[in-house]
Amino acid sequence: MSKPAPLYNRLALIGVGLIGSSIARAAKAQGAVGSIVATARSEATRKRVAELGLADQVVETAAAAVEGADLVIVCTPVGVCGAVAKEIAPHLAPGATVSDVGSVKGSIVRDMGPHIPQGVHFVPAHPVAGTEYSGPDAGFAELFVNRWCILTPPPGQNQAAVDKLAAFWKLIGANVETMAPDHHDLVLAVTSHLPHLIAYTIVGTADELETVTRSEVLKFSAGGFRDFTRIAASDPTMWRDIFVTNKDAVLEMLGRFNEDIALLTKAIRNGDGDTLFEHFTRTRAIRKGIVQIGQDSPAPDFGRGHQ
Amino acid sequence: MSKPAPLYNRLALIGVGLIGSSIARAAKAQGAVGSIVATARSEATRKRVAELGLADQVVETAAAAVEGADLVIVCTPVGVCGAVAKEIAPHLAPGATVSDVGSVKGSIVRDMGPHIPQGVHFVPAHPVAGTEYSGPDAGFAELFVNRWCILTPPPGQNQAAVDKLAAFWKLIGANVETMAPDHHDLVLAVTSHLPHLIAYTIVGTADELETVTRSEVLKFSAGGFRDFTRIAASDPTMWRDIFVTNKDAVLEMLGRFNEDIALLTKAIRNGDGDTLFEHFTRTRAIRKGIVQIGQDSPAPDFGRGHQ
Ligand SMILES: NC(=O)c1ccc[n+]([C@@H]2O[C@H](COP(=O)([O-])OP(=O)(O)OC[C@H]3O[C@@H](n4cnc5c(N)ncnc54)[C@H](OP(=O)(O)O)[C@@H]3O)[C@@H](O)[C@H]2O)c1
Ligand SMILES: NC(=O)c1ccc[n+]([C@@H]2O[C@H](COP(=O)([O-])OP(=O)(O)OC[C@H]3O[C@@H](n4cnc5c(N)ncnc54)[C@H](OP(=O)(O)O)[C@@H]3O)[C@@H](O)[C@H]2O)c1
Repeated sequence: MSKPAPLYNRLALIGVGLIGSSIARAAKAQGAVGSIVATARSEATRKRVAELGLADQVVETAAAAVEGADLVIVCTPVGVCGAVAKEIAPHLAPGATVSDVGSVKGSIVRDMGPHIPQGVHFVPAHPVAGTEYSGPDAGFAELFVNRWCILTPPPGQNQAAVDKLAAFWKLIGANVETMAPDHHDLVLAVTSHLPHLIAYTIVGTADELETVTRSEVLKFSAGGFRDFTRIAASDPTMWRDIFVTNKDAVLEMLGRFNEDIALLTKAIRNGDGDTLFEHFTRTRAIRKGIVQIGQDSPAPDFGRGHQ
Repeated sequence: MSKPAPLYNRLALIGVGLIGSSIARAAKAQGAVGSIVATARSEATRKRVAELGLADQVVETAAAAVEGADLVIVCTPVGVCGAVAKEIAPHLAPGATVSDVGSVKGSIVRDMGPHIPQGVHFVPAHPVAGTEYSGPDAGFAELFVNRWCILTPPPGQNQAAVDKLAAFWKLIGANVETMAPDHHDLVLAVTSHLPHLIAYTIVGTADELETVTRSEVLKFSAGGFRDFTRIAASDPTMWRDIFVTNKDAVLEMLGRFNEDIALLTKAIRNGDGDTLFEHFTRTRAIRKGIVQIGQDSPAPDFGRGHQ
């Protein structure tokens, strides 16, 4: 029962945090690549990556990492992907594919695209999967299983290169969909970026009240608040970069949200229980849909332990 | 190894949904009461309660349920607690304690209080524990373990009656705290009611977009959105009643939230990454605090399955 031949000979990972290390673990588990070379910004992370055995080789620079690689995945925060592309450009092997995992795609196309040399394929990607933790210890091989990975190849990309990257993501468990970068950014603004912004906001609000103590906020957080704190514990650098680079779509969704919260506020002020009841009934259907397509568990409270 | 004597001889539960049935299961498991008599609004629920063996006796009316009970817990939506109190008042046994589990306490004191006869103790309570499911099948005996139950006895209540109800909640696993009703309502407005309102809002917003399809919202919900859909799947009647009865505190918290979201919106509009980074760093500490005091799990993604 030998595994099928690897899809790529040599995978270069630039940045090995939650996402990069999960790709490394999953690619190894599935035999998706012949070998893995990795690099990260800090000496400490590079050392940890070596200790964890996440790569066959750990090197000091992105330029060195991409030498001879036929697949390069940039797994750094979105804001530095352009600089990384510039650094690696002269060192890319002809015929290689350059990809990334950034949560915003329009800015990736704009920032990385111009640096990619002729003869190298450029297929930006975004696996819609994650946790609130960061760094190479936080990753795991199953992270992408049954989650979606969205590819946003610029027009005119080599279809075989796109298909091969799609096959790579499928091999490590993901479902794959292709989208225009701007549409991706609008979709993720509502399914990810606005929820994070709102969670960050309310957790900040709760922390600043004079009338309710922090100790009370923590003790009685099981009423709903604690769910928001998980999301609002996500990496500040990653999320700063997302809001700065996906500004237009986020502001658009924020505008819609503000209109809707104004309507519900008015219903509360007027004691208009019927409007509230009708709204709360409608939103239940969405939850059912998500559970039905296997994007969340039907277990009460996410299956969170009650002991 | 016989169990200690029950704290109350006869517990009457009026309303046997998620909370009422969890109390029934927990009280039975801990031997906290001698016997349980239960009632619910509909024939269907009363039948189901009998089938599940949640009570020693199931009766048709609240008035019948409270006859001879020394502890009465009203477990209906907040909006009908006043009417229930009026119905049961003439039938309450002298020396009995009347309590409830409503998520709002000021209105409970106002609506139920005036009906409670002389010689009957009145100790409103709110267990800060729940799931997004409703009805007698949704409850479980461990729901209150390590969660807080807040008592809001009106001034001048018999201290022995308050202490005895506190002992009951402790016996079924909860931590107990006493608060003034209005302060309770302010604390829960931020730790529960505002989070629910925001979740209901954003799920509605996502459902109404023309530019992003519902199918896209569902598929890519793992980016954060799906967490909000769990909360926004909670019972519409319960939540309508909460927002109608805790209007002032909710509007107060909404005002604070709106100020804070305006500040973050401005930072996004101006590309002010430093303000965003600083805010996102501060909110992480709250999560740590909640995990440290055991009010949530440190497991990534709430320990939600990745298969
Ligand atoms: N977390 C999620 O839930 C999630 C989900 C989908 C997509 N994404 C995207 O995935 C990417 C990485 O996220 P992550 O959660 O894996 O982050 P992470 O755990 O914080 O890891 C980031 C990695 O990038 C490296 N890095 C940071 N700044 C760099 C720089 N200026 N130059 C070179 N390397 C640098 C870091 O090295 P050091 O450790 O040495 O600093 C680290 O290895 C982001 O673009 C994010 O938008 C994240
Ligand atoms: N769910 C939570 O997470 C949570 C947490 C803490 C506190 N609470 C509070 O607990 C209370 C009950 O919530 P729950 O989640 O247990 O609700 P639930 O599962 O929907 O159960 C409500 C029960 O009340 C009965 N009921 C409804 N309307 C009634 C009426 N007009 N007259 C008499 N009985 C009526 C229902 O009977 P039928 O089945 O026959 O309709 C049912 O037995 C609410 O006040 C809520 O604020 C809830």
